[in-house]
Amino acid sequence: MSAPQTAAALPDAGTDHRAARRRSSTALLTDRYELTMLDAALADGTASRHCVFEVFTRRLPAGRRYGVLAGTGRVLEALADFRFEEPELEWLAEAGVVSASTLDFLAGYRFTGSISGYAEGEIFFPQSPVLVVDGTFAEAVLLETLVLSVLNYDSAVASAASRMTSAAIGRPCLEMGSRRAHEEAAVAAARAAAVAGFAATSNLEAGRRYGIPTIGTAAHAFTLLHDDEESAFRAQVATLGPGTTLLVDTYDVRRGVETAVRVAGPGLGAVRLDSGDLGVLAHEVRAQLDALGATGTRIVVTSDLDEHAIASLAVAPVDSYGVGTSVVTGSGAPTCGMVYKLVAREGRDGTLEPVAKASRLKTSVGGRKGAARRLDEEGRAVEEVLIAGPDSDVTTWSPEDQTMRPLHVPLVVHGAVDTRWTGAAGVRTAAERHRASRDELPRGARRLSADEAAVPTVTLRLGGGTAAADVAS
Amino acid sequence: MSAPQTAAALPDAGTDHRAARRRSSTALLTDRYELTMLDAALADGTASRHCVFEVFTRRLPAGRRYGVLAGTGRVLEALADFRFEEPELEWLAEAGVVSASTLDFLAGYRFTGSISGYAEGEIFFPQSPVLVVDGTFAEAVLLETLVLSVLNYDSAVASAASRMTSAAIGRPCLEMGSRRAHEEAAVAAARAAAVAGFAATSNLEAGRRYGIPTIGTAAHAFTLLHDDEESAFRAQVATLGPGTTLLVDTYDVRRGVETAVRVAGPGLGAVRLDSGDLGVLAHEVRAQLDALGATGTRIVVTSDLDEHAIASLAVAPVDSYGVGTSVVTGSGAPTCGMVYKLVAREGRDGTLEPVAKASRLKTSVGGRKGAARRLDEEGRAVEEVLIAGPDSDVTTWSPEDQTMRPLHVPLVVHGAVDTRWTGAAGVRTAAERHRASRDELPRGARRLSADEAAVPTVTLRLGGGTAAADVAS
Repeated sequence: MSAPQTAAALPDAGTDHRAARRRSSTALLTDRYELTMLDAALADGTASRHCVFEVFTRRLPAGRRYGVLAGTGRVLEALADFRFEEPELEWLAEAGVVSASTLDFLAGYRFTGSISGYAEGEIFFPQSPVLVVDGTFAEAVLLETLVLSVLNYDSAVASAASRMTSAAIGRPCLEMGSRRAHEEAAVAAARAAAVAGFAATSNLEAGRRYGIPTIGTAAHAFTLLHDDEESAFRAQVATLGPGTTLLVDTYDVRRGVETAVRVAGPGLGAVRLDSGDLGVLAHEVRAQLDALGATGTRIVVTSDLDEHAIASLAVAPVDSYGVGTSVVTGSGAPTCGMVYKLVAREGRDGTLEPVAKASRLKTSVGGRKGAARRLDEEGRAVEEVLIAGPDSDVTTWSPEDQTMRPLHVPLVVHGAVDTRWTGAAGVRTAAERHRASRDELPRGARRLSADEAAVPTVTLRLGGGTAAADVAS
Repeated sequence: MSAPQTAAALPDAGTDHRAARRRSSTALLTDRYELTMLDAALADGTASRHCVFEVFTRRLPAGRRYGVLAGTGRVLEALADFRFEEPELEWLAEAGVVSASTLDFLAGYRFTGSISGYAEGEIFFPQSPVLVVDGTFAEAVLLETLVLSVLNYDSAVASAASRMTSAAIGRPCLEMGSRRAHEEAAVAAARAAAVAGFAATSNLEAGRRYGIPTIGTAAHAFTLLHDDEESAFRAQVATLGPGTTLLVDTYDVRRGVETAVRVAGPGLGAVRLDSGDLGVLAHEVRAQLDALGATGTRIVVTSDLDEHAIASLAVAPVDSYGVGTSVVTGSGAPTCGMVYKLVAREGRDGTLEPVAKASRLKTSVGGRKGAARRLDEEGRAVEEVLIAGPDSDVTTWSPEDQTMRPLHVPLVVHGAVDTRWTGAAGVRTAAERHRASRDELPRGARRLSADEAAVPTVTLRLGGGTAAADVAS
């Protein structure tokens, strides 16, 4: 065993022996149609056309005022492992998915294009181009499902988690929902919650992979295992010390608190309440703890909390919130509606042309888009601005105006992943970005009640020496 | 490349080189408190007490009439990889989760207890003991989170999927929701949907791991990549053959269908509709196809379908349903409320005693329970029967009455996993079980409208020579 290491010193996933279990191919976490499209496009020569795909959502979940982008770092980690090796190629051949020549192409596949996007943790609105993938059709089309799986799930969790940390007004939120999500989604959920300001997680793998602090002491089973509550508390304090958190509601809360303080002393770290009317109970338990001299003992509550329950406990003497089901399932919105759309492609003459599916209802703007957030003099967001126009203008655009904060950052440059966004350091950077971005929202935007997007999305059209702004959604 | 192999001949995951990427430790997909409880219980000697944990749910999602158990095979696969190796032990030491002596215990950890449960695919109701874990506290407590993560997610998907295959009345349902779920959850969702009767999935990894047929041909991006729709269709037919499915709604459906039949001929396999009023469109497209002589060309619809949309299309000339978001997110119920509860443990005198948390609201019955479904003379389910009483009576119980179908099957016997339930064969067995179990439901139980559980759950108490049935929920 090596010496203790702080979370900050943990090497990033990807360079770390501890992450070894994740270093296997992600290439089949893909919909079959991506490979069949590649197969047909290689045959007719269109596979080499230069393409731009954008990831965006057409709308926020009903009543939500903003979304939180999460998962970008995981996309980059997965991209590094997106390769077709012998086991993948062999299965594709057996299953007859693509032709032999396409298998040869896949054997040599590496993404050599470029990806830019909103920094992880950034807030997004309808139409925000949160990720822009630039490469040949062949290399970009294969990433659709994997990119969307990661961003749709992680952003759903972060978007819900941000409402919870906002409602908690500075009290720590603890992620404890692993058991209510697929076992690997649980790790991603812990990570996404951390991006949105959660202080810790119960999930050990999330601690290992991403350096997120882990918490947890005991369940009701531990009390029930023992002949009585006092034996259980004595066993826990003997091993974990008096600073531990004792679960006091297995039999009777009042007797549980009395026993807890008697066993651990007034220096008891915390008591946990996992059932009952938490607001009322917290007041009673606080009074009892204070009367017993345990004035520094904290109260953790953990029973089916969501952002609304957290808000309703604001006046209760609660010290931290353990959140389970609602955070890992996106609190009513378990996935985002992000799509991965071809917005421009090289035509017969070699120039990049905007493309879009015909639709009366789908209001997406064709062509590559830049993005910026327009701020008022107080630094508050007033508009989400999509920068549209000729591709060359959009790619070279930079704001003349200091009130426009550009939103795109480079993530992958000609196939090289920028590792600042990955691993444990990426999660910390994303959490900082989220805090700053949320602080920038207009006053009232963090209310939990149902309302429209906190700022409108508008389009600024470049080109021809004039620029016109029009509402895109 | 080896010769083509049928799905039926695919070796099971776990014995297969193709599953190599999954053969890494699952031991940290665990909540920290399981390890801290173990730490304290090893110190005071209670860790070796014989325990029985049960997995059950207290209620079905609002309005649902039955649940579908899925994930059992995945639990067994994950259990085989639940071991603490050097990377796990090193991280636990660095993070200071448990003491050095507990690390030694973990290094030698293998589950040597026994697990029984409902066969995967079986229908369950409130209180149904779908999994029973029997072992020492030390070995059983560590499995809580992993077991619940798998069963809660997979069963949420299967429970929704079963309503969809039921509403489809024999038309194939195709799982296409990978992009709306965490990338590994997507694989589990494809598997759970197959358990509940889905015919195929778009997810390639699910095809590889579990032998589920995969489907998919092209997205709108493929049409947009080309200079016009006809070029795209020609490219697709040239590579995938006229039996392929052409996506006809990128520009104009009527012109799309006309072009599709002109390019592929009247032997065109299918057209796909991904937008618009599907019921009306399907009638129009069917008439157009028939008029063009493409009477064998099928119609696949794929736009935001759920069980209600599928039911509403029953009279439309639709041949199969592609389902995305709603199936992978459990159609409004993205997780099950299954819990992992200590129901009996060895006391000071060495006998197994029932235990339960005090609660006015939680109506669970203490002690180990057997389970059976009581059938009427037509073979229709009338009651879910929990068998309660002294542990020895419950474990040796078998029905005298032919109308009682026992529900528990052995899954792990003294640490040995029964591999009949794992891999591709396990999925096929589970799908058969689900079909038989659903056919056994009372008439009307498959209605989609909100209602109570299709049958009541009652408790049959053994012992003392008398047996009494009482309602448990």
